[in-house]
Amino acid sequence: MTTTLTIRSAAGTYPVVIGPGILSEVGSRLRAQTGDPDGGVFIVTDDTVHALGYADVVQQSCTRAGYAATVTVVPPRDESKSLEMANTLYDRMLDAGIRRNGVVLAVGGGVVGDLAGFVAATYLRGIRFAQIPTTLLAHDSSLGGKVGVNLSRGKNLVGAFHPPIAVWYDVQTLASLPEREWRGGMTEVIKHALIGDKTLFAELAATPMDRYPGDDAAERLVARAAAVKIAVVEADERESGQRMWLNVGHTVGHAVEQLSHYQLNHGEAIAMGLCVEAQLALDLGLADTETRDQISFVLVRHGLPTVPPAFDFTEVVRVLNLDKKHRSNEWTFVLPVRIGRVDIVHGVTETALHKAWQQVLTGEENQK
Amino acid sequence: MTTTLTIRSAAGTYPVVIGPGILSEVGSRLRAQTGDPDGGVFIVTDDTVHALGYADVVQQSCTRAGYAATVTVVPPRDESKSLEMANTLYDRMLDAGIRRNGVVLAVGGGVVGDLAGFVAATYLRGIRFAQIPTTLLAHDSSLGGKVGVNLSRGKNLVGAFHPPIAVWYDVQTLASLPEREWRGGMTEVIKHALIGDKTLFAELAATPMDRYPGDDAAERLVARAAAVKIAVVEADERESGQRMWLNVGHTVGHAVEQLSHYQLNHGEAIAMGLCVEAQLALDLGLADTETRDQISFVLVRHGLPTVPPAFDFTEVVRVLNLDKKHRSNEWTFVLPVRIGRVDIVHGVTETALHKAWQQVLTGEENQK
Ligand SMILES: NC(=O)c1ccc[n+]([C@@H]2O[C@H](COP(=O)([O-])OP(=O)(O)OC[C@H]3O[C@@H](n4cnc5c(N)ncnc54)[C@H](O)[C@@H]3O)[C@@H](O)[C@H]2O)c1
Ligand SMILES: NC(=O)c1ccc[n+]([C@@H]2O[C@H](COP(=O)([O-])OP(=O)(O)OC[C@H]3O[C@@H](n4cnc5c(N)ncnc54)[C@H](O)[C@@H]3O)[C@@H](O)[C@H]2O)c1
Ligand SMILES: [Zn+2]
Ligand SMILES: [Zn+2]
Repeated sequence: MTTTLTIRSAAGTYPVVIGPGILSEVGSRLRAQTGDPDGGVFIVTDDTVHALGYADVVQQSCTRAGYAATVTVVPPRDESKSLEMANTLYDRMLDAGIRRNGVVLAVGGGVVGDLAGFVAATYLRGIRFAQIPTTLLAHDSSLGGKVGVNLSRGKNLVGAFHPPIAVWYDVQTLASLPEREWRGGMTEVIKHALIGDKTLFAELAATPMDRYPGDDAAERLVARAAAVKIAVVEADERESGQRMWLNVGHTVGHAVEQLSHYQLNHGEAIAMGLCVEAQLALDLGLADTETRDQISFVLVRHGLPTVPPAFDFTEVVRVLNLDKKHRSNEWTFVLPVRIGRVDIVHGVTETALHKAWQQVLTGEENQK
Repeated sequence: MTTTLTIRSAAGTYPVVIGPGILSEVGSRLRAQTGDPDGGVFIVTDDTVHALGYADVVQQSCTRAGYAATVTVVPPRDESKSLEMANTLYDRMLDAGIRRNGVVLAVGGGVVGDLAGFVAATYLRGIRFAQIPTTLLAHDSSLGGKVGVNLSRGKNLVGAFHPPIAVWYDVQTLASLPEREWRGGMTEVIKHALIGDKTLFAELAATPMDRYPGDDAAERLVARAAAVKIAVVEADERESGQRMWLNVGHTVGHAVEQLSHYQLNHGEAIAMGLCVEAQLALDLGLADTETRDQISFVLVRHGLPTVPPAFDFTEVVRVLNLDKKHRSNEWTFVLPVRIGRVDIVHGVTETALHKAWQQVLTGEENQK
């Protein structure tokens, strides 16, 4: 079985195909979709994913479909999301003779997707690319067309909007994910459920999926979370602002991630951010106690942390004010108001945030 | 007086304002168009243009209009069109606190426009930019939304389509252009006349403009040449292929430029390319002798060379085959068929090109 979703954007419509065994179908799917075996296929992956053989399966399927396909491997992790690595990839693409009608295939997690997507967006002023995600988090990063690299001074500071021609998501690759990577991806699944799928949220509360749950369950999980992201991204094209919803948990979460010097991974930091922001929503009278409790409950059931380290709150404020989105001590937050619904809230004060932060850290309000 | 043209593209519509004294109006025009003084203005220029004071005039006009504007200067010439320089500019933009709603202003020729445009296309996944051309050639490079940088292995290999929000073209800046730069730009003016403006072509033949002809004449010259490029670029959005017309003279011209190791500048090489391609069109029965002669006549009247150096023809073939657009010894050319009209011609053979090449080099056919 596979599930196919469709993303409609001004830049074009593309399919998101989710299911088991898709890796070995990439070549034939590419041929069915583009028809054109010309221009070369350039597969990018990272060492870890390469060692698991996934890129080779993709390459073989491309060869069978009549494409000249090469595999280029980069080191894993965010260090590879750099202009220097992009430069290296341009060189490899020239070596491989990739032309304007060539295709880049990103086989890996968000790092490979963002990097390979950026290179595809800029090589010869932009060639086609497809996302072949192998992490749970990539149900988020592979959708929406944002690609890019980091600068030494900050993450994702350079990039483009360059929608893929397709997202081919083989859920079986997720079976090899380390537990911590699975959990990190679950944070974003839970976030998407919180934003727009209360049924999924209830299922996750009742039957937690704290590891690979089998092909059918994984397909359903990815498809439902992806559907929320797609709906938000599509709505944002028509009426700006909804895309901000995706930031729920991320304002506090990013600050926590930075203050931990990335010792906490993204998913862990966002889980903590969701809890602080749920408390803030409660304090502001926007959410009820049950909503707050359900959020931390579902995170805990997925092995995710809910209480940030005891960072000095003035440090949190400092980091929030560094963020280019905020320029005074009144901030804009996206807060959960009930399961399946978040709201953009302007004018959040330092005092209000401080109270929520303290409550989560000390668990005081929880004890009442 | 100013002339305002409009470019309509899927990515948006933008004005091309041509006339004297526009540099000092940039700030007020920016404010009138965007309304928004927030996010910062980042002016990019090169040393030569900076020494002429043009960027300072732009900066002062921005300050008067209430913008926080900084000037960043890069070395002149194509060496600055690199990923390394882009990286440096990203850093300066972070230093200057440029945010998502900031604006990049490119004050200079095609180099500054391509570089600053690329940086604007990719900084924070793309911010607004405006072209403020100061070379005659930039009537070509500033229109159409192509931006980019070079790699060590070739020119313009990395880039994006990122249309500016406006092109503000102060023709008075052209008065300081060195003669060779003026002439180089004239090649592209003549090319545009050849593609789509036989009136302009006739005027240039009758009254050559081999140097800055005064404000009114310069405005008219730039506006008419720009109008041809705009028409072609707009047509190409609807029906792909017309943009290829702009390559007339460029197939042979690029080969000559490369074989000269860039000792010939772009305009000189393209002038030679136009002559060889006009001869080729004549040989193929697509153009008449008069058309060929008018082309070389108008080039000569503008001090441009019409006969390529005596490169080994097998070298020319080698370079043509390196070009990614050609993959056999049958080539696609864009050839002048009459003044004001070019055609895409497939299946041009090495033999046919060799004959035309020889004829131009030896002037034999001319002597008949
Ligand atoms: N473009 C967007 O919209 C967007 C959205 C969210 C996040 N991101 C980006 O995504 C990146 C994070 O993505 P990620 O969490 O997928 O990181 P990642 O790509 O670094 O993958 C995490 C780790 O898992 C390994 N891995 C990947 N697939 C595996 C598999 N099937 N089995 C075993 N190991 C596997 C990788 O080698 C890596 O070490 C960040 O750079 C972030 O900025 C982008
Ligand atoms: N993006 C496009 O569609 C497109 C089209 C054609 C060419 N280009 C690019 O444009 C570049 C060439 O443009 P260019 O010829 O303007 O080169 P340029 O920007 O290097 O300018 C040429 C020289 O003139 C100097 N100069 C600029 N303005 C001056 C002035 N008013 N007075 C005196 N000196 C001045 C510059 O400092 C430079 O030394 C190439 O990199 C080419 O690839 C791009
Ligand atoms: Zn996230
Ligand atoms: Zn040219």
